[in-house]
Amino acid sequence: MSNTEPVHKTLYPFVAIVGQEALKKSLILNVINPGLSGVLIRGEKGTAKSTAVRALAELLPEIDVVDGDPFQSDPHDPRAMAPEVYARYQAGETLPVRRRKVRVVELPVSATEDRVIGTINLETALKEGRRTIEPGLLAAAHRGILYMDEVNLLDDHVVDVLLDSAAMGVNTIEREGVSLSHPARFTLIGTMNPEEGELRPQLLDRFGLCVHVEGLNDPAQRVEVVKRRAAFEDDPEAFAARWADETEKMRTAIAAAIARYPRVQADDAILYAIAERSLKLGVDGHRSDIIMLKAAKALAAWEGREQVTEQDVDGAAALALAHRIRRKPFEDISGSSFS
Amino acid sequence: MSNTEPVHKTLYPFVAIVGQEALKKSLILNVINPGLSGVLIRGEKGTAKSTAVRALAELLPEIDVVDGDPFQSDPHDPRAMAPEVYARYQAGETLPVRRRKVRVVELPVSATEDRVIGTINLETALKEGRRTIEPGLLAAAHRGILYMDEVNLLDDHVVDVLLDSAAMGVNTIEREGVSLSHPARFTLIGTMNPEEGELRPQLLDRFGLCVHVEGLNDPAQRVEVVKRRAAFEDDPEAFAARWADETEKMRTAIAAAIARYPRVQADDAILYAIAERSLKLGVDGHRSDIIMLKAAKALAAWEGREQVTEQDVDGAAALALAHRIRRKPFEDISGSSFS
Amino acid sequence: MSNTEPVHKTLYPFVAIVGQEALKKSLILNVINPGLSGVLIRGEKGTAKSTAVRALAELLPEIDVVDGDPFQSDPHDPRAMAPEVYARYQAGETLPVRRRKVRVVELPVSATEDRVIGTINLETALKEGRRTIEPGLLAAAHRGILYMDEVNLLDDHVVDVLLDSAAMGVNTIEREGVSLSHPARFTLIGTMNPEEGELRPQLLDRFGLCVHVEGLNDPAQRVEVVKRRAAFEDDPEAFAARWADETEKMRTAIAAAIARYPRVQADDAILYAIAERSLKLGVDGHRSDIIMLKAAKALAAWEGREQVTEQDVDGAAALALAHRIRRKPFEDISGSSFS
Amino acid sequence: MSNTEPVHKTLYPFVAIVGQEALKKSLILNVINPGLSGVLIRGEKGTAKSTAVRALAELLPEIDVVDGDPFQSDPHDPRAMAPEVYARYQAGETLPVRRRKVRVVELPVSATEDRVIGTINLETALKEGRRTIEPGLLAAAHRGILYMDEVNLLDDHVVDVLLDSAAMGVNTIEREGVSLSHPARFTLIGTMNPEEGELRPQLLDRFGLCVHVEGLNDPAQRVEVVKRRAAFEDDPEAFAARWADETEKMRTAIAAAIARYPRVQADDAILYAIAERSLKLGVDGHRSDIIMLKAAKALAAWEGREQVTEQDVDGAAALALAHRIRRKPFEDISGSSFS
Amino acid sequence: MSNTEPVHKTLYPFVAIVGQEALKKSLILNVINPGLSGVLIRGEKGTAKSTAVRALAELLPEIDVVDGDPFQSDPHDPRAMAPEVYARYQAGETLPVRRRKVRVVELPVSATEDRVIGTINLETALKEGRRTIEPGLLAAAHRGILYMDEVNLLDDHVVDVLLDSAAMGVNTIEREGVSLSHPARFTLIGTMNPEEGELRPQLLDRFGLCVHVEGLNDPAQRVEVVKRRAAFEDDPEAFAARWADETEKMRTAIAAAIARYPRVQADDAILYAIAERSLKLGVDGHRSDIIMLKAAKALAAWEGREQVTEQDVDGAAALALAHRIRRKPFEDISGSSFS
Amino acid sequence: MSNTEPVHKTLYPFVAIVGQEALKKSLILNVINPGLSGVLIRGEKGTAKSTAVRALAELLPEIDVVDGDPFQSDPHDPRAMAPEVYARYQAGETLPVRRRKVRVVELPVSATEDRVIGTINLETALKEGRRTIEPGLLAAAHRGILYMDEVNLLDDHVVDVLLDSAAMGVNTIEREGVSLSHPARFTLIGTMNPEEGELRPQLLDRFGLCVHVEGLNDPAQRVEVVKRRAAFEDDPEAFAARWADETEKMRTAIAAAIARYPRVQADDAILYAIAERSLKLGVDGHRSDIIMLKAAKALAAWEGREQVTEQDVDGAAALALAHRIRRKPFEDISGSSFS
Repeated sequence: MSNTEPVHKTLYPFVAIVGQEALKKSLILNVINPGLSGVLIRGEKGTAKSTAVRALAELLPEIDVVDGDPFQSDPHDPRAMAPEVYARYQAGETLPVRRRKVRVVELPVSATEDRVIGTINLETALKEGRRTIEPGLLAAAHRGILYMDEVNLLDDHVVDVLLDSAAMGVNTIEREGVSLSHPARFTLIGTMNPEEGELRPQLLDRFGLCVHVEGLNDPAQRVEVVKRRAAFEDDPEAFAARWADETEKMRTAIAAAIARYPRVQADDAILYAIAERSLKLGVDGHRSDIIMLKAAKALAAWEGREQVTEQDVDGAAALALAHRIRRKPFEDISGSSFS
Repeated sequence: MSNTEPVHKTLYPFVAIVGQEALKKSLILNVINPGLSGVLIRGEKGTAKSTAVRALAELLPEIDVVDGDPFQSDPHDPRAMAPEVYARYQAGETLPVRRRKVRVVELPVSATEDRVIGTINLETALKEGRRTIEPGLLAAAHRGILYMDEVNLLDDHVVDVLLDSAAMGVNTIEREGVSLSHPARFTLIGTMNPEEGELRPQLLDRFGLCVHVEGLNDPAQRVEVVKRRAAFEDDPEAFAARWADETEKMRTAIAAAIARYPRVQADDAILYAIAERSLKLGVDGHRSDIIMLKAAKALAAWEGREQVTEQDVDGAAALALAHRIRRKPFEDISGSSFS
Repeated sequence: MSNTEPVHKTLYPFVAIVGQEALKKSLILNVINPGLSGVLIRGEKGTAKSTAVRALAELLPEIDVVDGDPFQSDPHDPRAMAPEVYARYQAGETLPVRRRKVRVVELPVSATEDRVIGTINLETALKEGRRTIEPGLLAAAHRGILYMDEVNLLDDHVVDVLLDSAAMGVNTIEREGVSLSHPARFTLIGTMNPEEGELRPQLLDRFGLCVHVEGLNDPAQRVEVVKRRAAFEDDPEAFAARWADETEKMRTAIAAAIARYPRVQADDAILYAIAERSLKLGVDGHRSDIIMLKAAKALAAWEGREQVTEQDVDGAAALALAHRIRRKPFEDISGSSFS
Repeated sequence: MSNTEPVHKTLYPFVAIVGQEALKKSLILNVINPGLSGVLIRGEKGTAKSTAVRALAELLPEIDVVDGDPFQSDPHDPRAMAPEVYARYQAGETLPVRRRKVRVVELPVSATEDRVIGTINLETALKEGRRTIEPGLLAAAHRGILYMDEVNLLDDHVVDVLLDSAAMGVNTIEREGVSLSHPARFTLIGTMNPEEGELRPQLLDRFGLCVHVEGLNDPAQRVEVVKRRAAFEDDPEAFAARWADETEKMRTAIAAAIARYPRVQADDAILYAIAERSLKLGVDGHRSDIIMLKAAKALAAWEGREQVTEQDVDGAAALALAHRIRRKPFEDISGSSFS
Repeated sequence: MSNTEPVHKTLYPFVAIVGQEALKKSLILNVINPGLSGVLIRGEKGTAKSTAVRALAELLPEIDVVDGDPFQSDPHDPRAMAPEVYARYQAGETLPVRRRKVRVVELPVSATEDRVIGTINLETALKEGRRTIEPGLLAAAHRGILYMDEVNLLDDHVVDVLLDSAAMGVNTIEREGVSLSHPARFTLIGTMNPEEGELRPQLLDRFGLCVHVEGLNDPAQRVEVVKRRAAFEDDPEAFAARWADETEKMRTAIAAAIARYPRVQADDAILYAIAERSLKLGVDGHRSDIIMLKAAKALAAWEGREQVTEQDVDGAAALALAHRIRRKPFEDISGSSFS
Repeated sequence: MSNTEPVHKTLYPFVAIVGQEALKKSLILNVINPGLSGVLIRGEKGTAKSTAVRALAELLPEIDVVDGDPFQSDPHDPRAMAPEVYARYQAGETLPVRRRKVRVVELPVSATEDRVIGTINLETALKEGRRTIEPGLLAAAHRGILYMDEVNLLDDHVVDVLLDSAAMGVNTIEREGVSLSHPARFTLIGTMNPEEGELRPQLLDRFGLCVHVEGLNDPAQRVEVVKRRAAFEDDPEAFAARWADETEKMRTAIAAAIARYPRVQADDAILYAIAERSLKLGVDGHRSDIIMLKAAKALAAWEGREQVTEQDVDGAAALALAHRIRRKPFEDISGSSFS
């Protein structure tokens, strides 16, 4: 009777979101390069934060997974296989392959540790005298996106689990002396309203990029937002159909950027420009340099170039540095400006 | 032996409430358009807050539900079906339909998470070796009204569950490795006395409208309140009978407004008027614009018109903006005035 | 082996309490009209607070209950029947009737939620494979008095349960997916020593009346208190016997007042006098008006009249308003004076 | 395998305690009249507080109990019988009587609620399919002395249980839907070192008397304390034997005072003297008057008189009033002086 | 499969500890007279505190225990027998005797209450349908030394258990309605670093002596410490062998002092000297006098005399008074000086 | 189904880390002499802290373990055997030997006490009626390295367990009355970002060395970091292959230093130099002297000498003293400078 298949629902199209360019760009860059380590979206209530993240699902590329494996093992990469699949791989079995879209897995604020980590299904234990592992949200999110709305309200224990998983790329399910470790690598996307409290520094640091979102100040744009929203609520399918071409165009552009990314080059001048920005702003450590390089390359790929420019570095810095500036009071994050 | 059927009790008639026009209007608008996302009723002790919400039950329209389904599945809309019903629908079964009134489901302050979310009935598990899901209050409230008296006193964990459910339209029952997700969309109505503490910002934002209620200052009205209350307590049925015609008249008017609502139009001038109000008052995000539009349309429908006027926008603003004004200390909510 | 029958003990006679007229009057008025919603007795240690409440048991009238029903169902009123009795009533069964005194049920400070709400008897579950509901103190108190000594020390969860029950007139027993709702309406009587902390505003508001009790300052009265107490401790039965006539006289007077109450009238001038007092003192909402009307009528009935006078309103105001005055610091409750 | 019989240990003789007259007198008065409601012994570390209370055991009179009854039922008083014994009494059975000393039952600071209240023995439940009540310390202490060393360190829940039991004279054992109430009336004796924190006001008020104990300042007395202690530790039995005559003399004197107590008279002048003391010092309520009367009578009985004198009132006031003076900061208790 | 036998490990020899004379003396005095109630060792990190206590094990005398009894019953003293052994003794059985060294039982900071108090072994319960008591650390420590490293970090509940046991000489194991009391008398030795917080006053008072330990300031001594430590770590057994003669000499000297102790006399001048010191320094109660007398006698015995001198009193005062001085702020303990 | 074997992953080579000489040296010294008690690595986010510790695994020497023993027993040293292996050893069995690398065992922040200490496998208990011990991380880390990322975020109970284990070299698994003690000696390596809070003093003291890590300020070095990181992420195996020679060279150098260490000598002048440094800086106790001696010897061995020089003492002091300076506010640790 276990049934967690999400109920089907038509989503608001990503391309129909009015304005909010930084938000949209930060999400697209993470699709182009999942190695960007996700994005934290800070902003006031009632902006398109959650809508944009959920809408992203339609733009995601496809991946190969081992068919029937709840741990999303990669049939081509032993390092991304769960133990049981790895054993079959070691034994020389030809693994069954299924192609499907990358997933957005949602982690609700009220989720228990059991649901995040996974647990033991006691039903089979009672009925059949055999314990089966019930994979958690971290298994479902492997090789995909883990989305946390109200990320600043998560229980401290759940945050510890996320930090461990993000640090080690592995999740361990354990109970009553039984334990199983499986790969769990995912892009973290979080949305938060700073009114309800800030994020712990360690979790903040796990997000590659950070954007701040505000309501639009242009009346014409506001009216457009309301018109589109009303049209969508009136008939979601018809609305999505009207935007289908735009959606398809963006999907194609993203696929092209993904294909182009490995060819994008950054010469030494670019690398020095990156290092100088980190040093000038006084960020902690080296993660900002690496993220800026990746973001700049993803930007170049998105704009159809194979060479990173200083403008790409500017664009990357605007997304990668604000939440890493050292020793500044936290409230300043939203006020930082980049030329 | 499970028996949660509420004990029958004659309710004080909605139409016999003296004064409190904003309170009554906010409730009626939510009946006309459940998409208004409910109303938060703030005010001092001993005003008609709870009485009005409970009385609303008599004025609610009827809906079709799948007969015998504890999850209130909609026989005509697969997106509002619980998994089991959806499976029957997919299998081509003709679903049995029952017509009944929209319900007001009450969420008590002392309710446990199990009772809100639902749980596993261990009785059948022990007797029959089979686990049955025991739906919670969120299942009962699907497609209806969820009423929380003393909403500011709810346990934080219960609030997290409500926020997740309100954000995703889905509730997940899970225990011992078994889990089930079902649609859970409802109109939130909350009453609170600010003396006992304020609401968390995220929960506050989930209420489309907000009204502030005070005791009446006109001695004649106060005397009328006491006379009616005394008459009701003396013989509830006789009192309700005396107001039956008024009740029927309002029920008819609401039904007419519901029918009229889809035809109500708002031209661009109205949309700009709405956007300007939000910008002038500095509210967060865009939700206020969308709520104002819906409230203004519902007001027009209630007053028998098919065209939204500036007055409707005024009326909508008075109900939709007070609790959304940015960066003002919270205590100011009750003091905001709208022309 | 379940045995909660209280051990028999001779109580100190209510009529032998020296002084403390406000305390005694507030209790008698609640017996005359249980709709007064109880009384909160505030005062220093070692005054007759608990003695008076316990002594009240001897003065209470009789009611009809369904024989053998632990939920105290009213055989004549389906709205006050527990589900099982209601089912028998619906099935046309002639319900067995037992006449007994209204009860004072004591809620100890250390009572667990299970004991207050009720729970499942696991003994029958283990022995007979069948779960039986074990009713709690709220079932025992239905249609009677629920007495809480040290009401300000009650656990927050127990207070939430009381507030829910007082608000809805219903108590819900639930455990492991089994649940049962039964009517639970009672008169709340609480005693407290403000030295140990104040009451939560919502609970305070549930008490219709409030009195403040102090030790007597007249040496002759104090000597009389000690003499009577010593005589009672020496031989409780003999002492009670000496006061039997006084007790019987008061019991008769209360019965007469109960019979007279429905005939007591209050004209519009009285209603306006009540409204003006509330407005002048700035109390919250309308509950004070309704309580004052009922208290004034009960006073009139107690004094043998069928017409409420301004003096009755004075007397009612002294008991009903002190704990409802708005925005005054709480400590002032005891110092409020009424002419 | 249940074995809680205390290991036999020779106690330091009460009569061998050097000095500390107030402490010794307060204990003796409580033996003469258990209605004095016990004594709270406050004082610094390393005074004879615990030694004196434990030593009291040897001086206690004998009582009749129902043989084999763990609830210490009184075979002659149905109000002090546990339910099972009461049922046998009602059924006309001749109850078996055993004569034994009044007991000092010690309540350890680390005692769990189960141990204090009693619980269900699951061993018999598992083995024999039958639940037996395992009586707690409150059952053991019925009709005796309940001694709490470090009373100010008791867990709040345990204190709540004690307050309920002291207020109602009844203890209720409940678990998993089974419950049993039995009489539990005892003399409360507590020792505390105020360095570790004060007592909750409600618990403080439950002690009839209160004494403050300090180390002796006379070098000769200190030397005597050390000599006696060293001799006792060297050979407890021999030491006790040396003091056997003194012990017997005091036991006889106490028995005589118990016999005399019912004949002791206090005329009205004494009662007025008592009332005036309470009024002059501004104590809360009337309990102080009643306790002073009892203490003065016990003092008279102890000194061989049948008439209470003003001196007896002075002696009683010194023990009964210090912890009841109203609105004074708590630290002043030890500094109060009485002529 | 229960196996708690400590893994064998060569200990650093007590006699090889450089300096730290007060520490070493305080431990030796407690071996000579266990009635000294232990010692609290305060001091900075990295001094020889724990090393000295663990090393003490080699110097301890032998005692007779009932063979096979996990409660360390004394075959010669019924007051120090566990219930089962006592029953065999009462039945006239000749108890089997085993001679073994007094033990140092270590109580880890992370120890649970179950491990300290003892619990029920569920393995036998499941396998054999019979519950066996699993004795805790308090049973293991009976008639020996209970050593607590980081005593100031112990859980409050564990401290309560220790206080009860130290006060009553009895420990009670209870669970699910089964309970067993056994004698538990031991010498408490605690080490602590005041940086991590102070001790609760009641626990502090349970230690007869108190010493403060600091690192050595003499470079030559420091070098010697490092040389010996390095040699020990290099080859523990060879190092211990080099110090074997010194160890044996001290063992013999301790045995002689134990034998001499009962003959040591203190005349009245000594007793007055003791009392005057307590009075002059203003310590609480009389425990200091008794401890000083015992410590002075143990010192005399250690130095080969049978008559206590004023110097012995000086030595005893330096160890017994510092932690008992009344009303001084706690931080002064280490700064107190004695001539 | 128990499977905790870590998923294979290519690690970043230790020798490819740019700069961070103190960090690298502190780790190498601990490999040369595990008696150095580990190292605490403090520093800002995004420096190579975790990378370096994980990379260390490739440089570790080999040890002999008893084949098939989850407790890592040493076949040659009975003091480092778990009870079962010790029993086989005692019985004269020839223990099977396996040679493997010393391990780095990672302790995640979210690890439960059960996972750290070990627990009972209930699966075998249910299936086979026999309890098997499931060893925890402390068993896995015996004779190896226990690595704690975010060591300052560990749960207090887990820290207590670590402190007990570090102090006694023994870990005790206990549950339901079953217990087992096994040797658990390991090198503690912790990384922390002081932004999230400091370490408890007792845990701080357990680390032999302490280094502070900052981001590099030289742009050329930063560019090199990014280049290497990008190359590694692009193709981990190829990158590791490019550094294989360097890695092998360092592995050989470490092995040589381990072999040389026992021959390294420090004369008295060195010992005095060490003692003087501790005294001058005012560190607590003697642990600093012993650690400095060991670190200086390891440095000499690393640099190919068999005689400790003053420079070695300087190098050792820079790593061993900063976190031990007495009474300085904690924040100064990072600012301490050593010549």
